[in-house]
Amino acid sequence: MSNIFPLKGKSHAARPTLNKPALDKAIGAFENLRLLVQDEMKGVDKFIDEKMASDEATIPDISAHIAKAGGKRLRPMLTLAAAHLCNYQGRDHIALAAAIELMHTATLLHDDVVDESNMRRGRAASRMVWGNAASVLVGDFMLGQAFKIMVGTGSLAVLDLLSNAAAIIAEGEVMQLAANHIDMTENACLRIMDAKTATLFSAATHASAIIAEQDMTTCAALASYGRNLGMAFQLTDDALDYAGTSIIGKNLGDDFREGKVTLPIVLAYQRGDKTERAFWQRVIGSHNQKQGDFEQAVDFMKQHNVLATTMARAEHYSKQAEETLAIFPQNEISETLINIATFCVNRNC
Amino acid sequence: MSNIFPLKGKSHAARPTLNKPALDKAIGAFENLRLLVQDEMKGVDKFIDEKMASDEATIPDISAHIAKAGGKRLRPMLTLAAAHLCNYQGRDHIALAAAIELMHTATLLHDDVVDESNMRRGRAASRMVWGNAASVLVGDFMLGQAFKIMVGTGSLAVLDLLSNAAAIIAEGEVMQLAANHIDMTENACLRIMDAKTATLFSAATHASAIIAEQDMTTCAALASYGRNLGMAFQLTDDALDYAGTSIIGKNLGDDFREGKVTLPIVLAYQRGDKTERAFWQRVIGSHNQKQGDFEQAVDFMKQHNVLATTMARAEHYSKQAEETLAIFPQNEISETLINIATFCVNRNC
Repeated sequence: MSNIFPLKGKSHAARPTLNKPALDKAIGAFENLRLLVQDEMKGVDKFIDEKMASDEATIPDISAHIAKAGGKRLRPMLTLAAAHLCNYQGRDHIALAAAIELMHTATLLHDDVVDESNMRRGRAASRMVWGNAASVLVGDFMLGQAFKIMVGTGSLAVLDLLSNAAAIIAEGEVMQLAANHIDMTENACLRIMDAKTATLFSAATHASAIIAEQDMTTCAALASYGRNLGMAFQLTDDALDYAGTSIIGKNLGDDFREGKVTLPIVLAYQRGDKTERAFWQRVIGSHNQKQGDFEQAVDFMKQHNVLATTMARAEHYSKQAEETLAIFPQNEISETLINIATFCVNRNC
Repeated sequence: MSNIFPLKGKSHAARPTLNKPALDKAIGAFENLRLLVQDEMKGVDKFIDEKMASDEATIPDISAHIAKAGGKRLRPMLTLAAAHLCNYQGRDHIALAAAIELMHTATLLHDDVVDESNMRRGRAASRMVWGNAASVLVGDFMLGQAFKIMVGTGSLAVLDLLSNAAAIIAEGEVMQLAANHIDMTENACLRIMDAKTATLFSAATHASAIIAEQDMTTCAALASYGRNLGMAFQLTDDALDYAGTSIIGKNLGDDFREGKVTLPIVLAYQRGDKTERAFWQRVIGSHNQKQGDFEQAVDFMKQHNVLATTMARAEHYSKQAEETLAIFPQNEISETLINIATFCVNRNC
């Protein structure tokens, strides 16, 4: 993993919080989490492969295409780790982690159609290979299978949590579609993020507390941990689009090229003068971009400390995530999850 | 309703089975079902409106747009009637009927995006008004809400049935996408229909047997009734596209214009000579259509009794649907449902 956290490069000028010890800690935290659940993640993969088996080759093909792109798969790993944190002794956490990952993947497939994205994690988006129609339908299939898996756990509380999450995520997407204006408020931007991203992170950790039959306090703590982690993760993601170094994962400038109104844009527009606002109106509002616009955008953002503010917001959520875990005994698992909160804001991919 | 079952018109030449007594019986059957559940359908509407309430106006707007198009809403009515057939005394059948209708509507929204349809039930398809992105996302929202409603019934068996149905329907759609070739076999065509349409009809009636805590035999009978009814309904729908009189509902020639490979096309291609096959290859296979092609298509179908065969298949399923109800006592409800099987194959909208 270490090669994905380089210290050099102009992008870091915009990330005042990124330093060598923080990066090392981040690398270590992610690696610890990965090691902690790596055997069970094989079970999750097997589970997903089984559920994606179909005579219709498009279904396993799209599923494999997305898997090969190699996301971090933070959500299912969090589900597994949260189950261990709650001393869960059963096997349903594997199924749950698979359901969470399938829900996430379904969202990605639909997102790419909605955003007309060409790339996803450095590879051609599925819709570019199999078309929009297949992406919509295989997404629907994944969602159906995710619900089937949840039904298999026999927990109505889990089904309640995740059906609610599915509706909130979709509502958040509709919200974004309607509110994707350059003059969106920061509050509106955070509300969309909460619905679109934080809801599933929250469900990922909360679901494990439910199957482990934890009390309300523990359930609430893990729900809150996931929600805050999701916010920290997404805010960092949005900053990385303008300040990151693309090695794996998201490409620098992807959001910009797609004209996505993320927090860095909202803040840059708010803080910009008349000339800058006209620039943002053209490149994002009218989605009319030319060579050099991205570099200009990053310059404007630097002038107004926009990425530093975005990362300050991310750290606020990261700290909250960390603190919600105080109720758990100190051990390898709680420590790993606390460190993951730091990882989320100290990564560059 | 009577004005939607006209007896005149060249279309009936292609429908050897349609006669005055059959039509009268069909009109009566649908009207009886409508009256039987009309009060409860108001409850279903209210339930759906509540679940579609959102600060994001696009959600209730799209929902209202589809509701106003005024489909027959056979699926939720069947859920309600099936509950009465089982002497169900609770209130969950209202919720279930709403969930079934939302699942169906979500499918329509995604279908229109997948098929690039411009019209739906004589109105502009939602995607033409709000765009593909909103149609995908509001469909996702509806599916999420449908699952929330099912969770509200507290029945894991219902959730199992309907999550399975959601996956099978999506898989059927993918199947259709892959197999939408002019030389598809009749068997492949029926398999797709079974997955895409009959699965939800089956779930609509089966779910009521489940919440009414019926024995396996009764559950199986109502599942089978719905499945056969769905097949009869869809086959008739496919025939109507070439032989129907459009007053409300589906427009004559919609499937043809969209290049959909339905059973009438499959049979016409199989039975056609070299010249005819070249015609079908051009108009459907290459989707290259010109004025007069639809009339030519209908003529070829008549020459080969294609619509009569399609309706014979439909009647086969209709009869099966009818016979599965033999285990229920004779009363107004069982009689209405038996007559609905006849209605499905004796309608022209």
